[in-house]
Amino acid sequence: VGNALAERVLAGHVPSAARVIRRLEDRDDEGREALAELYPQSGRAQIVGITGPPGAGKSTLVDRLISVLRSRGKSVGVLAIDPTSPYSGGAILCDRVRMQSHAADKGVFIRSMATRGQLGGLARAADDAAVVLDAMGFDVILIETVGVGQDELDIVKLAHSTIVVCLPGAGDEIQAIKAGIMEAADLFVLNKADLPGAEEAESHLSTLVHLEAGEGRWERPVLRAVAETGEGVPAVCDALSKHAAHLHESGEFVRRSADRARHGLFERLHDLTRERIQRSIDAHADLQALVDAVMRRELDPYAAADRVLEKLVSLRGRDGSDA
Amino acid sequence: VGNALAERVLAGHVPSAARVIRRLEDRDDEGREALAELYPQSGRAQIVGITGPPGAGKSTLVDRLISVLRSRGKSVGVLAIDPTSPYSGGAILCDRVRMQSHAADKGVFIRSMATRGQLGGLARAADDAAVVLDAMGFDVILIETVGVGQDELDIVKLAHSTIVVCLPGAGDEIQAIKAGIMEAADLFVLNKADLPGAEEAESHLSTLVHLEAGEGRWERPVLRAVAETGEGVPAVCDALSKHAAHLHESGEFVRRSADRARHGLFERLHDLTRERIQRSIDAHADLQALVDAVMRRELDPYAAADRVLEKLVSLRGRDGSDA
Repeated sequence: VGNALAERVLAGHVPSAARVIRRLEDRDDEGREALAELYPQSGRAQIVGITGPPGAGKSTLVDRLISVLRSRGKSVGVLAIDPTSPYSGGAILCDRVRMQSHAADKGVFIRSMATRGQLGGLARAADDAAVVLDAMGFDVILIETVGVGQDELDIVKLAHSTIVVCLPGAGDEIQAIKAGIMEAADLFVLNKADLPGAEEAESHLSTLVHLEAGEGRWERPVLRAVAETGEGVPAVCDALSKHAAHLHESGEFVRRSADRARHGLFERLHDLTRERIQRSIDAHADLQALVDAVMRRELDPYAAADRVLEKLVSLRGRDGSDA
Repeated sequence: VGNALAERVLAGHVPSAARVIRRLEDRDDEGREALAELYPQSGRAQIVGITGPPGAGKSTLVDRLISVLRSRGKSVGVLAIDPTSPYSGGAILCDRVRMQSHAADKGVFIRSMATRGQLGGLARAADDAAVVLDAMGFDVILIETVGVGQDELDIVKLAHSTIVVCLPGAGDEIQAIKAGIMEAADLFVLNKADLPGAEEAESHLSTLVHLEAGEGRWERPVLRAVAETGEGVPAVCDALSKHAAHLHESGEFVRRSADRARHGLFERLHDLTRERIQRSIDAHADLQALVDAVMRRELDPYAAADRVLEKLVSLRGRDGSDA
């Protein structure tokens, strides 16, 4: 009984945690076995999603949040998520060099994650990594996304509290994108609040927030900050604590944890079937004939998908290895 | 023989085309039956993806491209894709009001598409809509995305030619995102080229392009434009024609069409299995017990997914309705 790797993670061994996370990204059994031991130990951390348009200063804000949370005695795990694939890895890492000021601090764990060409796999990988850090005992886990899109929405859905970072003077299109994540936001940080247009942006956000306010609902704060200087960042941490308290008192924490568990199960289920379908198609040349028929436009893709499914079911009947 | 709705689409009836596209978005059988008739008639259009960071002026460029393509006698279908979900629909549509100047032109079809809460469904829906417009006889289909992320990458993968729109003076983070779609770009449009920083941005892009240039490869042009005034837009259309010719001469057109067909089949296959898994879980209360165990952290999500799959296979054995 007991998985040695998982035990080292639970004892706080950082390289072991990094290894489990990497193995889980690689969909490796070693990772899954460790996760099975870690999962029951997780569920205590406050998971905070941080998203917003490019250039809003998310990384700088995360850097400052770490400092303030540390000064308050909290340990902090950071997952910096870049769904725009391997290409941009280098550039983003550059931008995160400043976070290395925390590198010597044992109460801080920072990891960048990027897609590895697997559709939909990033939210699952981030979820797994959050479980590892949570089980390890980090009090707060910050999940930072690089942009704003469906992927980022899927990722912030993992969070108990979501910060949407905005900036003054952004064009209409950025405002529209911001509107796309309104629903997910638990608090707004108007960063670079020393720039022109801050008043206007703040009143715009406040109007949006008040439109959605209601009896017994969490009234989402709009906080001004200048992450570059650290101004306003302690107030963001205060709001996070207040939101955590609200989640627990209102029963919302249990609901969000349950949603997260349910969503995580479905994601892994879809992942598993996706892997199996791919493996079956790779292994059976006669399925390739259907792919060819679609290419030659003799068969439409829905009809072909139906036939592939029929074949997969009959294959499963003939040889048990796919079940 | 013959589907009446599909026949009306092939005869150029715009409301019927809009109806088929909506039915396909709704995953309705009526849509799939029409698509089965339309699919063999598709494969002639040049499908052009247009992506780039928020604020780069993609909508304005699309508006100008329509005018130039129309003046050259080409019919144009436009799919304006917003993966950031229903919330932002209104704002984006506002931005697209200018496109209504083409509303009276029978040679132009414009449609906005947004996710309907279905993960990964937007690329499929855009693919279906492109097949409908293609079968209808539109010469060029412009697929415009609202931002830059994995969703947008999946969508531009549908295209034969992809335009990446950049703007001068964007921050490092936007540059990094742009780097994320470098691989997908067939041509770069440096829009708002009358702004300061245009020279620098152009030389940055040219350097990136030359790094990747090689014998017999398409050398990706970097074109300066001011979409607002229309300046440089005819040259973008010229480059699109040149790229189309290159695709045909090099055999790349066939390869990209084949990739598109293969990718489309896999997407629909995953969609179908996803639907079936969801339906099975909804229908069988004993599967809910596994979901509950994950929520209570008695079972990790991978172990639970394995057990659900086992159950689905045995359900399929007992009752044929899922096969």
